[in-house]
Amino acid sequence: MTSAGEANVVVVMHTDATPDEIGAVLVRLHELGCGTEVSTGKERTIIGVLGTAIPDLAAMIETLPGVDSCVRISKPFKLASRDFRPLDTVIDVGGVRIGGGQVVTMAGPCSVESEDQLLSTAHAVKKAGADILRGGAFKPRTSPYQFRGLGIEGLKLLAEARSQTGMPVITEVLTTEDVEDVATYADILQIGARNMQNFILLEEAGRTGKPVLLKRGLSARVEEWLLAAEYILNTGNRNVMLCERGIRTFETVTRNTLDIAVIPLVKRMSHLPIISDPSHGTGKWYLVPTAAAASVAAGCDGLIIEVHPDPDRALSDGPQSLTFENFEALMTQSRAFANAANRPLWSDYAPTRVAT
Amino acid sequence: MTSAGEANVVVVMHTDATPDEIGAVLVRLHELGCGTEVSTGKERTIIGVLGTAIPDLAAMIETLPGVDSCVRISKPFKLASRDFRPLDTVIDVGGVRIGGGQVVTMAGPCSVESEDQLLSTAHAVKKAGADILRGGAFKPRTSPYQFRGLGIEGLKLLAEARSQTGMPVITEVLTTEDVEDVATYADILQIGARNMQNFILLEEAGRTGKPVLLKRGLSARVEEWLLAAEYILNTGNRNVMLCERGIRTFETVTRNTLDIAVIPLVKRMSHLPIISDPSHGTGKWYLVPTAAAASVAAGCDGLIIEVHPDPDRALSDGPQSLTFENFEALMTQSRAFANAANRPLWSDYAPTRVAT
Amino acid sequence: MTSAGEANVVVVMHTDATPDEIGAVLVRLHELGCGTEVSTGKERTIIGVLGTAIPDLAAMIETLPGVDSCVRISKPFKLASRDFRPLDTVIDVGGVRIGGGQVVTMAGPCSVESEDQLLSTAHAVKKAGADILRGGAFKPRTSPYQFRGLGIEGLKLLAEARSQTGMPVITEVLTTEDVEDVATYADILQIGARNMQNFILLEEAGRTGKPVLLKRGLSARVEEWLLAAEYILNTGNRNVMLCERGIRTFETVTRNTLDIAVIPLVKRMSHLPIISDPSHGTGKWYLVPTAAAASVAAGCDGLIIEVHPDPDRALSDGPQSLTFENFEALMTQSRAFANAANRPLWSDYAPTRVAT
Amino acid sequence: MTSAGEANVVVVMHTDATPDEIGAVLVRLHELGCGTEVSTGKERTIIGVLGTAIPDLAAMIETLPGVDSCVRISKPFKLASRDFRPLDTVIDVGGVRIGGGQVVTMAGPCSVESEDQLLSTAHAVKKAGADILRGGAFKPRTSPYQFRGLGIEGLKLLAEARSQTGMPVITEVLTTEDVEDVATYADILQIGARNMQNFILLEEAGRTGKPVLLKRGLSARVEEWLLAAEYILNTGNRNVMLCERGIRTFETVTRNTLDIAVIPLVKRMSHLPIISDPSHGTGKWYLVPTAAAASVAAGCDGLIIEVHPDPDRALSDGPQSLTFENFEALMTQSRAFANAANRPLWSDYAPTRVAT
Repeated sequence: MTSAGEANVVVVMHTDATPDEIGAVLVRLHELGCGTEVSTGKERTIIGVLGTAIPDLAAMIETLPGVDSCVRISKPFKLASRDFRPLDTVIDVGGVRIGGGQVVTMAGPCSVESEDQLLSTAHAVKKAGADILRGGAFKPRTSPYQFRGLGIEGLKLLAEARSQTGMPVITEVLTTEDVEDVATYADILQIGARNMQNFILLEEAGRTGKPVLLKRGLSARVEEWLLAAEYILNTGNRNVMLCERGIRTFETVTRNTLDIAVIPLVKRMSHLPIISDPSHGTGKWYLVPTAAAASVAAGCDGLIIEVHPDPDRALSDGPQSLTFENFEALMTQSRAFANAANRPLWSDYAPTRVAT
Repeated sequence: MTSAGEANVVVVMHTDATPDEIGAVLVRLHELGCGTEVSTGKERTIIGVLGTAIPDLAAMIETLPGVDSCVRISKPFKLASRDFRPLDTVIDVGGVRIGGGQVVTMAGPCSVESEDQLLSTAHAVKKAGADILRGGAFKPRTSPYQFRGLGIEGLKLLAEARSQTGMPVITEVLTTEDVEDVATYADILQIGARNMQNFILLEEAGRTGKPVLLKRGLSARVEEWLLAAEYILNTGNRNVMLCERGIRTFETVTRNTLDIAVIPLVKRMSHLPIISDPSHGTGKWYLVPTAAAASVAAGCDGLIIEVHPDPDRALSDGPQSLTFENFEALMTQSRAFANAANRPLWSDYAPTRVAT
Repeated sequence: MTSAGEANVVVVMHTDATPDEIGAVLVRLHELGCGTEVSTGKERTIIGVLGTAIPDLAAMIETLPGVDSCVRISKPFKLASRDFRPLDTVIDVGGVRIGGGQVVTMAGPCSVESEDQLLSTAHAVKKAGADILRGGAFKPRTSPYQFRGLGIEGLKLLAEARSQTGMPVITEVLTTEDVEDVATYADILQIGARNMQNFILLEEAGRTGKPVLLKRGLSARVEEWLLAAEYILNTGNRNVMLCERGIRTFETVTRNTLDIAVIPLVKRMSHLPIISDPSHGTGKWYLVPTAAAASVAAGCDGLIIEVHPDPDRALSDGPQSLTFENFEALMTQSRAFANAANRPLWSDYAPTRVAT
Repeated sequence: MTSAGEANVVVVMHTDATPDEIGAVLVRLHELGCGTEVSTGKERTIIGVLGTAIPDLAAMIETLPGVDSCVRISKPFKLASRDFRPLDTVIDVGGVRIGGGQVVTMAGPCSVESEDQLLSTAHAVKKAGADILRGGAFKPRTSPYQFRGLGIEGLKLLAEARSQTGMPVITEVLTTEDVEDVATYADILQIGARNMQNFILLEEAGRTGKPVLLKRGLSARVEEWLLAAEYILNTGNRNVMLCERGIRTFETVTRNTLDIAVIPLVKRMSHLPIISDPSHGTGKWYLVPTAAAASVAAGCDGLIIEVHPDPDRALSDGPQSLTFENFEALMTQSRAFANAANRPLWSDYAPTRVAT
């Protein structure tokens, strides 16, 4: 993540560190394969560590005798960083371009429950301006007694909905065994919040070469999230998009706390597109349209929204799912803010894509 | 908070609760002055508690023998709730109307540092479209060794800036002793996040009758925040506005986590205006304009923004303060989203107020 | 999780709910297969829902017209609950009994790095009184550039250490593909914090029939943790132990916040043994022995401790690893508190097990 | 906090920083009154900043052109730090020594409710081995409709209880106006969690010269807590003790999360005594004795426990208050662990103090 010769750790020795202690730190750093640059001041010695790729070097050195503190001064991720690739990554999914300056909308039910439910939703969200169809075939559930999805059957229904509407499909993959199946049927593989640090799954998903949407973990710091993206990028797959879906905090009046400021922050730190998920971010259907509008104003590259023909009867996430009518209202509201930002909705920008 | 006759607690007895245990719960509730309504089912007894004003009644009853659970089913705040007053509260501050459907902008330095600094900032933010001047005369500081403000001298400078620009003034009051002085010089009294539950200060500020801006505490739940507002409202002062300024979470890449979803949530739960503070909400100047835009899209009634002629030399909050130029950019961006929402900036809506 | 006939949800209707609204709620509940019990009071109607196994029923019903609130009144987990099995679960691992009233100690390096490192550590911790050897062969790492373990080679070294010391072995399994290998070599399968809600892994691990140690997720609530345990128990595997390893909070001075009170809380809610991990719980070697002592006083059934021959050179978790000498000090300190609680260390209680 | 000549900030310049940028940083530092020490390496320049007392210097410098990062390398508190005073502070309160190696117990009701309630509790806790009587006369309450204490009347009852039992008295002071009254009647002034950063109150309390117990704020980092203590110490009052009372986290099954590891951490960072409050730390009476035992094992200098003759009828904090019988059980359990640690309960160590 740093070019050779660039220090990314600074070791500050105690004012009373002995030459032996300083020497031992240097020996240890050289053993670890790091270059060093010693600055000897009147008061104390400071050691710059050059070009290391050891992410927890600071923690490893800090415990040595004579070391006052040890500070990382550059970021531990590389492929995901904007330093590495200054221009925005644009991902083409069946003709829909994510990250190219327009706002893409992904919508559909939390879980695929039946053919009717999925197809009616797919047509309705398409008509309202959605670009990509979402729907869960494999569902992670907090309790083993909850509905866990239709599995392969759900994937096939998603493919059918794609062929009827022309919308590419995004769906979650839960485990390495399912990666091949999901990659066969879906256009984007979704990694859920609970799996953000399931590193083997990240690599398997990456190796398919398919676009991957990586949700932020419930308590993941931005740096950890970008490092998780790094796992996928490191397989050679450049088609990674991030998804802010709210974090877990002390506040329980909303299901999660949508961390709106990470949208512009991630755009600054990374070249990857960022999608906002106000459905999980708030957990309450009546907050979703406004949180979507705020996300557009914050500069997100897309939205992912849960929609259900009858939220009261949804087998999962009913309280945060929109009716068709409320989803239309959301699109109207988002359109106004997207236009105000000169970042139109993709379905307005590329209207030929909307033809059914 | 509930009209007489409305239950706000439900006591669910164990399926094997004895008549004596049920009786003891009823006796205890009557001692506490509560009416009760007993529903005897085949399986268990449920007691509805009528018209109580005891906020922690559920906790008090839950420990009694035979009680399975005890649940509060209505909100413990009253004067702040939208049920109590369905229409939006509109607060007139020197002709600027907060909560009336337009977006009001408060701007100025974190701390009043000198006459030059304050006056140059006041004129600059006024020119860019700000409606109200902010500036701290009394500063709460984490360390006793930090700059704590100019005190009364700062209040006088704020009054001078008001007379030069026509902008009303908001400033923080830290302690009951200063309430009278601050109320003499300022148009809005600000209660800071650290003092959100300094209940005696809330009441003293309330009794001045002046408008009060109540910041959310670092780890305050929405209900606690509205209950803190209730303290002020309970003094008879109806001119209370809330301010979301970010909460403390595990994420440290931003100073705080701006909780964007509470803006529409508070508008739904309460009739009080809500102001967003993206300066404290993010802690990084380069995120402030975007977070302000998102707040406008989320429906806030106003913004409060830190601006400094030279942020690198600010005695407090430099990293989150905008230059004059960046503040102008923020106003341009916010205007676009305010117009998209048909909620124009106050200075555009009431342009005669802007004349100097 | 509730026997038939027991209500676990209470639906409170609005005071002005119409008979039609009440009827619609009842119809919906019957569709969902729930029995109901209607209590009609003077002021409002309350519906008890009987014997349901739908965990998010409350959320599903709450959105129906006329419903004021809907409250779950019993726990959504069953097999893990103390109601289900009042007596403590005791797990026998190669003669070491976990959960039987004595304090079991698991110790060893974070990662298996080499034969020398592992064997020297194994002999040292055995000598100091450890009962079970820990060591990671497959390591989940935040960055793809970090050391990820020796894999199968590491498992073989653990087996070698077991045959030399007689200590059973615990090691982490990261992915379903590795479950069979890990189960072949290890005596306890560890599910790490990042995988607490990797439900498919939980089930695969459960199906081996081997004892499973389930670490609490970084931001998992106790109920979610017990539901994750429920996934394992639901496979028919009763040998599940929980491990508190600190949660993620706003405080960063320690790596995590060791949630000491969940130890007695989990003992009250569940029959499963609970192990404390003060190494991850604090992240600082100099806090580990005291946090271990506090855990023993709090009633944990065991400790899991990271020990390394030379923590400064550890490839992972050096800052929280103890030297052999510090581990001996930890054992001395823990012994004193274990004896004070009349819950002796297992190695003192069953000294014949310690013979090499 | 640093002796003159010791750097406490390190400024790391970009590798491509110009001489002008380096010069501008030096000029700015000198303007701020800081000495500097420049280390010019092959790759980049690092500036050590000497002997500064400006706590947010790093944030102020970080925004200057050419600066890569700016890192604080020593602690911003001084008087509270163990570097400043290596030996434990011992506070004598009416003959009870806090911080001297024994475990002191403070106990009594949350609120003083009546003469009977207070006196019966005082005699009961004294008999069970408590050293100091707690009781609230001024109560901070989340809602304005809750019981807010007896005020001066409560203080007089505490004084009466002291004269009957010989126990010194601790009570909370909420506002500067009450400092004089509270200091007249009480032996220790308690600053509550909500007021931890009410800096003017800290100073007023400090100036009385009376011992002050400073509770940690709900979301206060350890450094902020020690800086709050610094405000009191800075008035010349050395009799400050800290109190861990649980922090606010995502976990709601307990009222707060008792942060057990800060007990040994604070003992390492500071010379001040630390008291544990397991009543607020857990919020559930049935967890209090075990959490108290764990606190003793963690090395706390004392406990503060809520006790009530009839917790079900307590006007505040009933769910976390112990009956007399449960308090006796707590003392028995704590005694065992205190003895195991060779840090006996004060009432056992100084039995003559217990005579009534």
